[in-house]
Amino acid sequence: MDTSWTRLGLIAGGGTLPRLVAQACEADGRLGCVIALSGFADPADYTDPLVRTIGQFGHVVEDLRVAGCDAVCFAGIVTRPDFRSFVPDLEGAKLLPKLLAAAVRGDDALLRVVVKAFEARGLKVVGADELSSSLLAPAGMIGGDVDAGPHQPDIAKAMQMAAAIGALDAGQGAVVCDGLVLALEAQEGTDAMLERVASLPENIRGTRQTPRGVLAKRPKPQQERRIDLPVVGVETVERAAAAGLAGIAVEAGAALILGSDAVDDAARRHGIFVIGVSPDS
Amino acid sequence: MDTSWTRLGLIAGGGTLPRLVAQACEADGRLGCVIALSGFADPADYTDPLVRTIGQFGHVVEDLRVAGCDAVCFAGIVTRPDFRSFVPDLEGAKLLPKLLAAAVRGDDALLRVVVKAFEARGLKVVGADELSSSLLAPAGMIGGDVDAGPHQPDIAKAMQMAAAIGALDAGQGAVVCDGLVLALEAQEGTDAMLERVASLPENIRGTRQTPRGVLAKRPKPQQERRIDLPVVGVETVERAAAAGLAGIAVEAGAALILGSDAVDDAARRHGIFVIGVSPDS
Repeated sequence: MDTSWTRLGLIAGGGTLPRLVAQACEADGRLGCVIALSGFADPADYTDPLVRTIGQFGHVVEDLRVAGCDAVCFAGIVTRPDFRSFVPDLEGAKLLPKLLAAAVRGDDALLRVVVKAFEARGLKVVGADELSSSLLAPAGMIGGDVDAGPHQPDIAKAMQMAAAIGALDAGQGAVVCDGLVLALEAQEGTDAMLERVASLPENIRGTRQTPRGVLAKRPKPQQERRIDLPVVGVETVERAAAAGLAGIAVEAGAALILGSDAVDDAARRHGIFVIGVSPDS
Repeated sequence: MDTSWTRLGLIAGGGTLPRLVAQACEADGRLGCVIALSGFADPADYTDPLVRTIGQFGHVVEDLRVAGCDAVCFAGIVTRPDFRSFVPDLEGAKLLPKLLAAAVRGDDALLRVVVKAFEARGLKVVGADELSSSLLAPAGMIGGDVDAGPHQPDIAKAMQMAAAIGALDAGQGAVVCDGLVLALEAQEGTDAMLERVASLPENIRGTRQTPRGVLAKRPKPQQERRIDLPVVGVETVERAAAAGLAGIAVEAGAALILGSDAVDDAARRHGIFVIGVSPDS
């Protein structure tokens, strides 16, 4: 257990991840409060959450202080606000020039400003994986019982493509089939990218009957790793299978697996693999 | 007029480009034959075309010989064949191992094998822009009467992103809005990419009322430029406008404009710009 902090506030966006983080943190008795971001998190998923908009930076910092938090974790899906119609509170407004300047550089640049703003208030920013180490993708087989060996060239190339677009601060995912780059992820997200692959002509992709091709997800090489690590869940597995892919590759130690048993079950059921690849392999 | 060849065979895929090439070549009296690729070109678009599948390499070479051609031009949309169910003729079968080896490296690698195979038969491979210089995108404003100046940062970043994914042999197009990379093009093609941008949340993109963001199309830095130059036509303009973009940027001298008057008209009608950017600017 990390003893550098005593009480944590969870800032929750959408999806399953923040619920898993809240459970893990509650289990070790250090959950100070949950701040459910309006429009992203469902407050009904949490016990006594505070509901705030993403512009209410000052209110959130005050919520954390009142709850006695000395640490904060950001988890879940949050999309970029429209800064032209953004309604910040007073502290949020002070942050706005920095946010605007960073926004044009990319999502990672934007998130770094947010992290620094919380750190400047004396809060330790903790990654979801630090709260629940079981979330972090290990090296080797994570799900399924398919031999990933024959797909090694596609795994390697998809990982290389994901790193390349990550270095551009454009996205974290890529799909490669028999060496051909089928799709690169930007603001549409992984689910939409996989839907698109499923609608490509069958001659350049796999099918459920003859799966081929690999989805790779990995963090941007330069990104702030305490926020926005790539996530793989049951839905990712289902969509990858529907797109005719043979498997999913993530960077070991740098991706979150949302329920490793559930992901393994789904991968077996759909006949695909989920594998953790060491970054230097 | 290029006098290094006397008679040209046009190998036509889908879309408007091969029709424009056929007209230009017929006008200067050097069109030897049109080979309409089955499944891609509509034979009704041409006078006495020969219809061949993309596997019939030997037949195509013989067609060109019979028509007295010493040059060949590839124009129009052709998607990758499924090499597992590919039916080549005898000469096509001899080429197959090289095609398969190149296919896993990317589209550009694959096209280079095709070009070399024709050159090895003594045929000069001529780019569409060499047959009709009016097709080639100039530097400066190509279409519309909107000031592109305020969009310069997005133009520059979108051009940079398109070059980066081109260097990966992944695609030729990218969309950037207020510095944020909205979409990167791979096998789905530009039209599908623009449809996807149109379905992104309005807070990160433009609208018809308030257009913002730029589509850039440019060749892959290393690509064979006699085949597969990026193309902008009226439909590209219409889809860019529907996606809320402010304009389209192409690399001057390295993109084909399908009907410069029609593209200009469409750009004016939809209130967007089409601009040619010098590669070193």
